[in-house]
Amino acid sequence: MHYTLAEIAAKIGGEVIGDKNFVITGINSLEVANSSEISFAEEKFLKQATASRAGALLVPRKSEGLCQNLIICAQPFQAAGLLMAEMDAAAQQVVHTISEGAAISNSVSLGENLHIGPGAVISENTVIGDNCRIYANTYIGKNVIIGSDCCIYPGVVIREGCKIGDRVMIHPNSVIGSDGFGFLQIAGHNVKIPQIGQIIIEDDVEIGALCTINRAALDKTIIGRGTKIDDHVHLGHGVHIGEEVIMCAQVGLAGGVRIGSQVMLGPRVGCVDHITIGDRARLMGGTQAAQSLTGGKDYGGTPAIPARQSLRQMMAATHLPKDRSRLAVLEKRVQELEKKLAEKTD
Amino acid sequence: MHYTLAEIAAKIGGEVIGDKNFVITGINSLEVANSSEISFAEEKFLKQATASRAGALLVPRKSEGLCQNLIICAQPFQAAGLLMAEMDAAAQQVVHTISEGAAISNSVSLGENLHIGPGAVISENTVIGDNCRIYANTYIGKNVIIGSDCCIYPGVVIREGCKIGDRVMIHPNSVIGSDGFGFLQIAGHNVKIPQIGQIIIEDDVEIGALCTINRAALDKTIIGRGTKIDDHVHLGHGVHIGEEVIMCAQVGLAGGVRIGSQVMLGPRVGCVDHITIGDRARLMGGTQAAQSLTGGKDYGGTPAIPARQSLRQMMAATHLPKDRSRLAVLEKRVQELEKKLAEKTD
Amino acid sequence: MHYTLAEIAAKIGGEVIGDKNFVITGINSLEVANSSEISFAEEKFLKQATASRAGALLVPRKSEGLCQNLIICAQPFQAAGLLMAEMDAAAQQVVHTISEGAAISNSVSLGENLHIGPGAVISENTVIGDNCRIYANTYIGKNVIIGSDCCIYPGVVIREGCKIGDRVMIHPNSVIGSDGFGFLQIAGHNVKIPQIGQIIIEDDVEIGALCTINRAALDKTIIGRGTKIDDHVHLGHGVHIGEEVIMCAQVGLAGGVRIGSQVMLGPRVGCVDHITIGDRARLMGGTQAAQSLTGGKDYGGTPAIPARQSLRQMMAATHLPKDRSRLAVLEKRVQELEKKLAEKTD
Repeated sequence: MHYTLAEIAAKIGGEVIGDKNFVITGINSLEVANSSEISFAEEKFLKQATASRAGALLVPRKSEGLCQNLIICAQPFQAAGLLMAEMDAAAQQVVHTISEGAAISNSVSLGENLHIGPGAVISENTVIGDNCRIYANTYIGKNVIIGSDCCIYPGVVIREGCKIGDRVMIHPNSVIGSDGFGFLQIAGHNVKIPQIGQIIIEDDVEIGALCTINRAALDKTIIGRGTKIDDHVHLGHGVHIGEEVIMCAQVGLAGGVRIGSQVMLGPRVGCVDHITIGDRARLMGGTQAAQSLTGGKDYGGTPAIPARQSLRQMMAATHLPKDRSRLAVLEKRVQELEKKLAEKTD
Repeated sequence: MHYTLAEIAAKIGGEVIGDKNFVITGINSLEVANSSEISFAEEKFLKQATASRAGALLVPRKSEGLCQNLIICAQPFQAAGLLMAEMDAAAQQVVHTISEGAAISNSVSLGENLHIGPGAVISENTVIGDNCRIYANTYIGKNVIIGSDCCIYPGVVIREGCKIGDRVMIHPNSVIGSDGFGFLQIAGHNVKIPQIGQIIIEDDVEIGALCTINRAALDKTIIGRGTKIDDHVHLGHGVHIGEEVIMCAQVGLAGGVRIGSQVMLGPRVGCVDHITIGDRARLMGGTQAAQSLTGGKDYGGTPAIPARQSLRQMMAATHLPKDRSRLAVLEKRVQELEKKLAEKTD
Repeated sequence: MHYTLAEIAAKIGGEVIGDKNFVITGINSLEVANSSEISFAEEKFLKQATASRAGALLVPRKSEGLCQNLIICAQPFQAAGLLMAEMDAAAQQVVHTISEGAAISNSVSLGENLHIGPGAVISENTVIGDNCRIYANTYIGKNVIIGSDCCIYPGVVIREGCKIGDRVMIHPNSVIGSDGFGFLQIAGHNVKIPQIGQIIIEDDVEIGALCTINRAALDKTIIGRGTKIDDHVHLGHGVHIGEEVIMCAQVGLAGGVRIGSQVMLGPRVGCVDHITIGDRARLMGGTQAAQSLTGGKDYGGTPAIPARQSLRQMMAATHLPKDRSRLAVLEKRVQELEKKLAEKTD
């Protein structure tokens, strides 16, 4: 990135105070930015911003002590976001061509303006919408439908029959539509139950790196619109996830779990199979849900209980060794009392 | 899938009651099946089946209220399983050819009737048995032996020298034979211990997506016949797993652990290094085993204790905040008693 | 491997007692080695070594009862390590050529003596140092810098702009530089914060299979020199890891965490975002750190407390059901005492 402050001001709709031709090569936080980078400060951070070594600042107004070049703009944080998105797009820019090194079945239906990297494999009857980036060494099975403006990062595997909406982003090496884990134990043998269910990933879903979204024996596995999933997350067969859910890293949901909309699952949350988590419930990191939970509340602990209660329980547990001693002392004192009282009675 | 009921009846050995030419396009559960799908009900679900919108039903007998097309068969659940397996095979059907886009060393020994996808890499002196499906973008190192009828899904990495039996299934992006985690700390530096042990995966093993099965410094890592492993499972170096074991998602076993046969490990179970879990032991989800456990019993908790005891402990812990107050109250009452008794004695 | 004992003795600087032409095909532990393998025993294991079926032994001296072929050497364990490293190198030996099946941008700068496997994709302006092994089906994005003597195993994905030092080893299917998990909730929608930070991996770092090292919105994600990371580890955006750290499998660190040098994190350790773990702290398996921890100490539990205290708490918790009964009994006894004392007073 090489932008003058004048160029940046034009992009975000701001006004330069200082050197309009000053060249910016990056954006960073107030503490870390160097003299060729731009940083940003909302009103309440203006004082702190005076100490920043940034070469320029996005700020809501001129303020005492700010001697860096400034761009005055109504919403510095949003302006920074715009700049970051532009830099991200530049850093990831791909040529929108289809690599000769991709293996694409003749029966595939391809949209316009695609990037398909070398080593990408796209199987029979699959449909890819417009403006998708299908990176190198991905595998897309038969009869898959992918909407438009999707980004499928390198190494992602999407098995046959999955249906993926628009603007879906799947990070590297994730696996969509792998078999659910279902076996019958017959005469001491584990006999596989075929997993032929479908996967539906709705619009605007983001799936982190190294996730597994499993297909069910029957029925569908569904991830609702706008849901965002971090890395190393495991969704068992037939899970239904609502809209705009946030799932942090290393979450694991067993088969058939139902998650409502706008639910928040912290890191390492687990759910046993076939329970329901209500809309807007929030499960703190590490919570293990062993039964269905009402929406709109916060939970913690193993098994999950209301978060406040779980914190109290955790605090109480730290006193356990001492409390055991208190209990033992008390038993002796009571025994002593009983003895004395008995003597008195005699 | 497009089958008439007559065709399905012939496949599973049943008898049609209703329209023999009715066309079925899928199979689903009683609740979810639509009018072009078939469902199934064992004796005890016949009443519930009357409400199903399925176009046809596999049932053990004609029964009051069933107005769908029926196929009468002795074991509806098994018949459904047969149909599902057939649909699964159809959905996953591959051409049994070796892709020109695969990179196969000249010294590889290939069986008959293979599918090897584009981007598959098979290294020197490796042996692949008959009827294997080696999907796209897999990597198989040198001197590997793979039996017959195996399914190696896309992106799987099998490093040099691994030995894999017949009918083994490895789901996408799993890693077999990666280095175990072994270092010596010498003068403040972590010095790598070479990991040259072998991996043995016996017949009929299934390994989920995104699993790691590590090779040891010396000795072997072994997964016994018929064992089934879910996604995101980590087996450390030199682990020995018995036969017909079930391991749920996100299990992690440290180096040198010995797991008996027919053991069941729930989701997120962990074992510290070099302990032994006896045959038919069952560890509930989240159990962390810190020492060896006798077979034939159920366990839970951190560290692992008998499951019933662990549940009792978990229940007792929920009373901790209240019990602390009871303890404090009791201390005051005893103090009061002591005081009164002392007064009396004076 | 086929070596005579004379050849091995020359390699490690030892002296053969027995058949100099005896052929060795492998190395193994005292218990497991067979008659064509060599094993090793330090002074304190010499007695135990007499029972080994190994065809030859590396030992510090001739000793009563050792009737195997012997190689006398000052440090048997180190000599075994040398042999293992040589066998490992032989087992993994690659031809140092660049595969025709690799897709390498014209603008890439390639060092000398490289192995680049089929299906490897190396993007614009990336720099690869001398003597690297870049295995099959890897993906390396634009503007990446990789030092010399690195080993990038199959399926690894390194996104744009990452900077990797010398002698770095990354095991299969790991993902370096994927987007951190950052969203703003605006009017009920999760809006992505672009992640444009850089990744710095210093010299001599080893990263296990199926790990994710995330890039931050801004700032850098740093892994210090000599740090070793096991499989399935997740490092959130902007994490800074010190030097010579050991991280066991399935560790998960949230964004902005600072880990000092020579820290040891056991399996499944988790840290909430933006906390600091001091130098040489050691966190036992499963520890969940909810606030910053002082260096040089051992920790355990959820939330993390000093390890000894955590063990005492865990032990105390096993008595909970019984202690609840004791508490209830005590309450009755105190009530009884109060009643009796009241009667006496009347």
